[in-house]
Amino acid sequence: MKYAIGADVGGTTVKLGLFAEDENLLEKWEIPTDLSDSGDHVLPDVACSINDILRGKGISGTDVLGVGFGIPGAIQPDGIVNKCVNLGWGVRNITEEFKKLSGLETFVGNDGNVAALGEVWKGGGKGYRNAVLLTLGTGVGGGVIIGSRILTGAFGAAGEIGHIPMAENEEERCGCGKKGCLEQYSSANGLVRVAGRLLAASDQNSMLRNLKKITAKEVCDAARAGDKLAQASIRFSMGLLGKAMASIAAVVDPEVFIIGGGLSKSGDLLLNPIREAYRQYAFHASRNTPILLAELGNDAGIYGAVRLVLMEASRHTAV
Amino acid sequence: MKYAIGADVGGTTVKLGLFAEDENLLEKWEIPTDLSDSGDHVLPDVACSINDILRGKGISGTDVLGVGFGIPGAIQPDGIVNKCVNLGWGVRNITEEFKKLSGLETFVGNDGNVAALGEVWKGGGKGYRNAVLLTLGTGVGGGVIIGSRILTGAFGAAGEIGHIPMAENEEERCGCGKKGCLEQYSSANGLVRVAGRLLAASDQNSMLRNLKKITAKEVCDAARAGDKLAQASIRFSMGLLGKAMASIAAVVDPEVFIIGGGLSKSGDLLLNPIREAYRQYAFHASRNTPILLAELGNDAGIYGAVRLVLMEASRHTAV
Repeated sequence: MKYAIGADVGGTTVKLGLFAEDENLLEKWEIPTDLSDSGDHVLPDVACSINDILRGKGISGTDVLGVGFGIPGAIQPDGIVNKCVNLGWGVRNITEEFKKLSGLETFVGNDGNVAALGEVWKGGGKGYRNAVLLTLGTGVGGGVIIGSRILTGAFGAAGEIGHIPMAENEEERCGCGKKGCLEQYSSANGLVRVAGRLLAASDQNSMLRNLKKITAKEVCDAARAGDKLAQASIRFSMGLLGKAMASIAAVVDPEVFIIGGGLSKSGDLLLNPIREAYRQYAFHASRNTPILLAELGNDAGIYGAVRLVLMEASRHTAV
Repeated sequence: MKYAIGADVGGTTVKLGLFAEDENLLEKWEIPTDLSDSGDHVLPDVACSINDILRGKGISGTDVLGVGFGIPGAIQPDGIVNKCVNLGWGVRNITEEFKKLSGLETFVGNDGNVAALGEVWKGGGKGYRNAVLLTLGTGVGGGVIIGSRILTGAFGAAGEIGHIPMAENEEERCGCGKKGCLEQYSSANGLVRVAGRLLAASDQNSMLRNLKKITAKEVCDAARAGDKLAQASIRFSMGLLGKAMASIAAVVDPEVFIIGGGLSKSGDLLLNPIREAYRQYAFHASRNTPILLAELGNDAGIYGAVRLVLMEASRHTAV
């Protein structure tokens, strides 16, 4: 039996999954992300943790096809990471570094891209070969899948959906340094910002006014309870997302859109305004593209990272 | 010696090119597009004209690898055309129809997509495998090339760059039925519309005020002569294009952008504001993507259409 390992590296934890070659998830675990020393401990910690698990299960390194990584940064087509702000990394060659640390074949992708690969492999986009995933979490991540493979882009920036310019006259800066990016409005944080602005702009009655600190979940709960201001916040926030998706369709025209991330748990409350805006702005030929929910939740990254390994392994076998 | 033929079908003329298998253009000609009877004569006219040329040159149909078409409409991945407003066509299977009419193998693509293929084959994008072409003519056409091939999209709408939603509060409708599409501002017609609006909005002095009917060329000439209103029109029109290109880069992150179409003849006058806006709005990883001029002019379509044939022919040979 051969094995493959997926590692989804986030700013707080690294999620890990051990898969059998037959595509079954055997074990799932996580370790904290150590951000000290410019994130220099992250890869050694992952190598160590994988080593422990393999030893515990009596699996030899020669039976591991490889380790796939989802990394929160721009990954160039040659596998070199061009800056990970969240991890404190500059430009580094993760593929080589981790191979040296672990002795295991290493494959690297952007976290949003890798999650998209996971969702078309085993999740909400199963069966589709051309799909776009939008992950609504702290930011808006994304991934473009063409012919069942990740579209990396020339500079590792394909699928950086969250940084589509959507608004003029924004005063605050996005994490990327620009102003008016999609994720400033349509992420969990973005929705909270939008609600905060609507609260500040009027005296309209709203149950959100009594809260010390508003979260995206509270905006969704209030909207479900009939709060007009919360509903308007969601309409604005998800309306922009639907409009951005119409732009995406005019570029790559996917078979399906998949909406994931923490916010997507609110289901139709968000999907309905997304779909409405999408249909309004989409070019007629792609007006009916299905918009579905992701299904793998926080596991999308480890699934996609393992899929990276299995695709490469089968490619080598085929040669 | 084998041959291939390219046909670029427009609303006024069909441009045709006879190529040798060694990729040389042997002869170029055009015939008028007969729009009567819902465009039913277009394909028979093309078949007849090709037949005449082949007979005149003593070329047998068995020595023709095929005919490639660029068609102004959404071409589905199966080669079926889903509406061509300009030609009066509804849904039709051009591949089968033309094969029956001519006895020749037939390959079909969207005109903007096919022009993009031509430009990466022999024009401004030569040597690039991943590119986006924007054609600034009556409308804004486009094409996305990934791995040296046309990205068709699930519903034939990939590369419909001209229909990226760019503005709210637009009162006039785009040809596609929507309001606020990129091509309402950044095509030749769009630039004229923008100038007309600026003229109407103020009493600002401008040499454009003396003209009975303004054309895009006149706006460019006036801008070159120092006319402030004409310059502002170009800044607005090309600024929106640069912003749309930043959205495109956040989706597919091409190696290069290529600007073609009649308007592109004005070179740096347009490229400078495009580049400035692009850099302002692009995600950092792709901020320095080269923005180049197309080189094949009106021949991009026939080159790309022939490239379609040669790629398919070589694929069949390989099998």
